[in-house]
Amino acid sequence: MNKSRLEAFSDGVLAIIITIMVLEFRAPHESNLAALWPLWPKLLSYALSFLFVGIYWNNHHHLWQAVERVDGRVLWANLHLLFWLSLVPFTTAWMGENHFVAAPVALYGVVLLGAGCAYYLMTRVLLASHAPDSLLARALGSDIKGRVSILIYAVAIALAFTLPWLSGALYALVAVIWLVPDRRFERVLAANAR
Amino acid sequence: MNKSRLEAFSDGVLAIIITIMVLEFRAPHESNLAALWPLWPKLLSYALSFLFVGIYWNNHHHLWQAVERVDGRVLWANLHLLFWLSLVPFTTAWMGENHFVAAPVALYGVVLLGAGCAYYLMTRVLLASHAPDSLLARALGSDIKGRVSILIYAVAIALAFTLPWLSGALYALVAVIWLVPDRRFERVLAANAR
Amino acid sequence: MNKSRLEAFSDGVLAIIITIMVLEFRAPHESNLAALWPLWPKLLSYALSFLFVGIYWNNHHHLWQAVERVDGRVLWANLHLLFWLSLVPFTTAWMGENHFVAAPVALYGVVLLGAGCAYYLMTRVLLASHAPDSLLARALGSDIKGRVSILIYAVAIALAFTLPWLSGALYALVAVIWLVPDRRFERVLAANAR
Amino acid sequence: MNKSRLEAFSDGVLAIIITIMVLEFRAPHESNLAALWPLWPKLLSYALSFLFVGIYWNNHHHLWQAVERVDGRVLWANLHLLFWLSLVPFTTAWMGENHFVAAPVALYGVVLLGAGCAYYLMTRVLLASHAPDSLLARALGSDIKGRVSILIYAVAIALAFTLPWLSGALYALVAVIWLVPDRRFERVLAANAR
Repeated sequence: MNKSRLEAFSDGVLAIIITIMVLEFRAPHESNLAALWPLWPKLLSYALSFLFVGIYWNNHHHLWQAVERVDGRVLWANLHLLFWLSLVPFTTAWMGENHFVAAPVALYGVVLLGAGCAYYLMTRVLLASHAPDSLLARALGSDIKGRVSILIYAVAIALAFTLPWLSGALYALVAVIWLVPDRRFERVLAANAR
Repeated sequence: MNKSRLEAFSDGVLAIIITIMVLEFRAPHESNLAALWPLWPKLLSYALSFLFVGIYWNNHHHLWQAVERVDGRVLWANLHLLFWLSLVPFTTAWMGENHFVAAPVALYGVVLLGAGCAYYLMTRVLLASHAPDSLLARALGSDIKGRVSILIYAVAIALAFTLPWLSGALYALVAVIWLVPDRRFERVLAANAR
Repeated sequence: MNKSRLEAFSDGVLAIIITIMVLEFRAPHESNLAALWPLWPKLLSYALSFLFVGIYWNNHHHLWQAVERVDGRVLWANLHLLFWLSLVPFTTAWMGENHFVAAPVALYGVVLLGAGCAYYLMTRVLLASHAPDSLLARALGSDIKGRVSILIYAVAIALAFTLPWLSGALYALVAVIWLVPDRRFERVLAANAR
Repeated sequence: MNKSRLEAFSDGVLAIIITIMVLEFRAPHESNLAALWPLWPKLLSYALSFLFVGIYWNNHHHLWQAVERVDGRVLWANLHLLFWLSLVPFTTAWMGENHFVAAPVALYGVVLLGAGCAYYLMTRVLLASHAPDSLLARALGSDIKGRVSILIYAVAIALAFTLPWLSGALYALVAVIWLVPDRRFERVLAANAR
């Protein structure tokens, strides 16, 4: 089975998710700069989600370069990941409209947690069909970043009802952790090319 | 004629269908968890449709790997399938907004039935241009799943006006039937590779 | 310059155009079958536009298979075509909401006319960079269908203010003319393969 | 690392950006031609933005043909560009709804300036991983057009609060500068092919 259609379909879904979030910015009816001010929580919420979807796209891109075979279970593990990510525009809108108060911030974390677990699950399903010394297995390694992210999401959700802004900061922290490019794949792939 | 553009276009349309359904979730104006509760029929309806579009994508992916030639009639048979699937966001929204009552549940089934028949028709058009011992013909076999699904849809539509929840359960049953990965193609393609 | 990105971008835009039209179908608030009845002009309008965008995708697909080289002017001729087609969801919505009365029917034709001229222009720009005995030139031939379509659009626009339903029928006639698969390309490409 | 997924993802995002802008055209409730008249600022605003996104797609297309290698930083430089461009539908809608008055015109320029800087930054990141005599470096040259555009945007933003229509004209001027096809890449790529 070839992986290029799975990549193309995932790219399509991620491109749409990242772009339709912007439909939440309704143009204000007034035409002065002051009318833009109330939009800042929406913009902040959008930028954070853009970052997260961008990170998922980047990681997906890196991961799938090392994938050698695809079966039916992998297709569904990937669709499961896309399902969680497809809920991001909804939680982004709710959080942005409500100025980062408790419930929306917690729900935002729940969807990130769901996506994080779905990604982890997808790597497990992939590993099951790859040899322990395959490129994929070596590049993934122990996947510390993935595990730590899930832990931070869980803490942030618990904190959301008392300290929502701290939860927001923890989400941003996860984004920063991943923004540092994931050199594992580049290193292993480069070593392999030599 | 090459099939990669047809696959790419179909992937694009399916990716958009699966993603715009989420636009139906309007962020509630209240910011407490209780405000999420009324969304459950929408979420259930969305999850079911995500599953169905995912199944169609998976089956399309499997089927087209075995396709060897494309002509003008196949392009239209594929567009016909996409037309029915493009109506899914509408029926999903109507069913989700109305808590799975009779008419929306029946219409949901009508669109699934239309898509099921369109898929079946597409396989017939493809078979007409492939040899009886082609990969495609062997992998499709007698297509029992496809025929059974169409039958279940018809029953579910008839039941919708008296037992709408049973209809919903029948739709879910079809999804489960297909979730079991369609090994026909994998088996035949693998045998062929050997 | 490679043509695959141009094809992929065009596929993306056409896939979105064909799919966002369905957002016009707002789920009615009532949940009985009678609530669907007022939607028929929207459905008819949508089906017609789906057909037209499908035809453009089909023709684009056929045409570009014979294209051998791409330059900057061709990129813009293609974007010009996509611009006109991007207006189709707007005219579709206006015509569907207003039960096919004069002005919306005329505007619908104006956008089809614009797209038809843009397509014709694109073929001219392509021919300018291809030899007279190239596959492309032979397959396009005198492009009678293209010229006739433009003529019919012009007549339909003129008639819209007195006989809007006749205009609609003329639009449908053009669709039928194109639905008959354009064998020119298949024939020439097949002959070439031999 | 392969660049085709980055191209495909960018194509997807740009295709969606260019197409969702058209959702701003709400079909008027009246069905006469006069009802279209108030839409002209939206249409003008849309046409300008279509042009700009088209230009970015064209330039992206040209640039990436000469790219030989991709690393993690390039992926983010590209996502950064897409972020700015994703804001175009919002500024287009605001400017179109408010008849090109000061604040919306200024904000439109700010987003164009952001996109222009992001594009420039992306070329710098790309050059850092390419040899000084690489195809990419030779084709980009001193990138005068890119620098001049940024300068014009800055001037136009400053003018928006006193002469908004002049700002609009300056934006159009930048578009015209880029509409002249960027022959640098075509020339260098052609020379290389020889």
